[in-house]
Amino acid sequence: MTPAPGEDRLTARIAAAARAGGIRAPGGASLRMGIGDDAAVVDLPKGRYVLTTDTLVEGVDFFPGELPFWIGRRAAAANLSDLAAMGALPVGFLLSIAVRRKDGARAARRIAEGAISRMRPFRAALWGGDLSRAAATVVTILLVGKAPRPVARSGARPGDVLFVTGSPGSAKAAMELRCSRVGRPPRAGERPYVDPPPRVAFGRALAGRRWATAMIDISDGLGRDARRLAAASRVRLVFERAPPGALSGDSDDFELLFASPAAREGSILRLGRRLTTPVARVGRVETGKGVVLEKAGGRRAAVSGGGWDHFA
Amino acid sequence: MTPAPGEDRLTARIAAAARAGGIRAPGGASLRMGIGDDAAVVDLPKGRYVLTTDTLVEGVDFFPGELPFWIGRRAAAANLSDLAAMGALPVGFLLSIAVRRKDGARAARRIAEGAISRMRPFRAALWGGDLSRAAATVVTILLVGKAPRPVARSGARPGDVLFVTGSPGSAKAAMELRCSRVGRPPRAGERPYVDPPPRVAFGRALAGRRWATAMIDISDGLGRDARRLAAASRVRLVFERAPPGALSGDSDDFELLFASPAAREGSILRLGRRLTTPVARVGRVETGKGVVLEKAGGRRAAVSGGGWDHFA
Repeated sequence: MTPAPGEDRLTARIAAAARAGGIRAPGGASLRMGIGDDAAVVDLPKGRYVLTTDTLVEGVDFFPGELPFWIGRRAAAANLSDLAAMGALPVGFLLSIAVRRKDGARAARRIAEGAISRMRPFRAALWGGDLSRAAATVVTILLVGKAPRPVARSGARPGDVLFVTGSPGSAKAAMELRCSRVGRPPRAGERPYVDPPPRVAFGRALAGRRWATAMIDISDGLGRDARRLAAASRVRLVFERAPPGALSGDSDDFELLFASPAAREGSILRLGRRLTTPVARVGRVETGKGVVLEKAGGRRAAVSGGGWDHFA
Repeated sequence: MTPAPGEDRLTARIAAAARAGGIRAPGGASLRMGIGDDAAVVDLPKGRYVLTTDTLVEGVDFFPGELPFWIGRRAAAANLSDLAAMGALPVGFLLSIAVRRKDGARAARRIAEGAISRMRPFRAALWGGDLSRAAATVVTILLVGKAPRPVARSGARPGDVLFVTGSPGSAKAAMELRCSRVGRPPRAGERPYVDPPPRVAFGRALAGRRWATAMIDISDGLGRDARRLAAASRVRLVFERAPPGALSGDSDDFELLFASPAAREGSILRLGRRLTTPVARVGRVETGKGVVLEKAGGRRAAVSGGGWDHFA
């Protein structure tokens, strides 16, 4: 028989990398047929599942010439952040990779290895995917998780307190550092952009305790995603403090913005310390609509415009 | 409050198009939170699920300048064909669309409407997705289905008979017609390429009756996918007849190649007539390996090379 052609050989190598991780589908899910058939077959127990997909495009979501391994890790982090915002735990994922012909099979394999390495600590198994070529690198992940108590954007109530994880704005600063070092192994200062830590454990803990009334990931910008949460919950969000520029920037921060009953404030700050997740109170929820920032002397400024919009 | 920005308005319009179809998640699945949150939340009953993803890239999988609506329909058909090859019924899907800035929101909406229209007869509900822009149009679908008895590529046994649905090669002929009419409403002769009919009902019926021992979709080429089925089943496939060029071409035919016990031949041909799915016996399964074509006088020619390989 002729040796396996390029695409089949690549599929086999990615399957080997996935197995090398020794991940079994968690949460009672059981992979029956995986990488290499027309589709993945998974036995799922009855439950509430969360499905998210996020696409990263070269030149839009990452720099041309970026190292494929880190593109894969970042694609995984983006999807993990969406699940974190629902309070879900990852179960398994599909990975669709398109690379330029000249970059070839090695780039695709390194993207897969990066994604697998980022998913591993969260025990999400690679179930399957798709390989193709394109004029630019495009990575799409479909991530499946479980969430007995998913948190929507729509449950914030007047009187709630607003929190943000991490340091909004730090991804942008790290991106500016990365800009001049694209294609080289990332330094620590570039990590908030190149390899942000998804807040999966923290999001899951909030949801499990019912401490978050509404939650969203702020990857399109703190101000923009705050307006989405306010609109979905039909409330006004009042920021009492915000990092300079964070409310008008487009961020790329894979952090969580959430509302909680005021009585939970102390518990939430303790939970953050226990899970080593930086979390800070940044505001509160009122009746009304839109998003405002409190300034010195009690003046308020509307937070409008800014943020990332592919179709603005 | 400021009006919703472009991306949110587009999301709302796509959600409206999905609801206009009046599709509820079938098979006992229940959509709890859908389009517009960070992720879709779906209550799934215990069962065997099939997940597939297929990406279509402009200039590789469809012509530059193609009508967005038909790009969306074709992306849906490609994914439905993968599910059909597993003997699965669709349940729901996520849709990730990247378009050029100049094509804008309208192109993205038309792609979504095309995909929704192609999924509708199969009762697959749009659960969510992702919108972004890129230097070329890229459409990725994640399709979830159910298959109590999924059919792998690996179960063909010596003595089985080989069948193919449809007319392999007809997509290629239709593509050549389409080439000079890209961007205009497709004529009937272009349909096998632009809008192929996924063999979902036929694949599901075969699987439910356990009449297929192995099955694969031949979108990468009849010869190439036959070699994959032969390798997975550790058998030799003998083609007794094949349309000229179909075994060496790269096809794009969203048709099924499957093996069945010889005793089922009559039943399978009757099933094809009942479901108005063209199906023909094309060969048989032997011990050995690889794929051969029987020629006049009993000579045999190895079927090697050809077929679509993104990484050849």
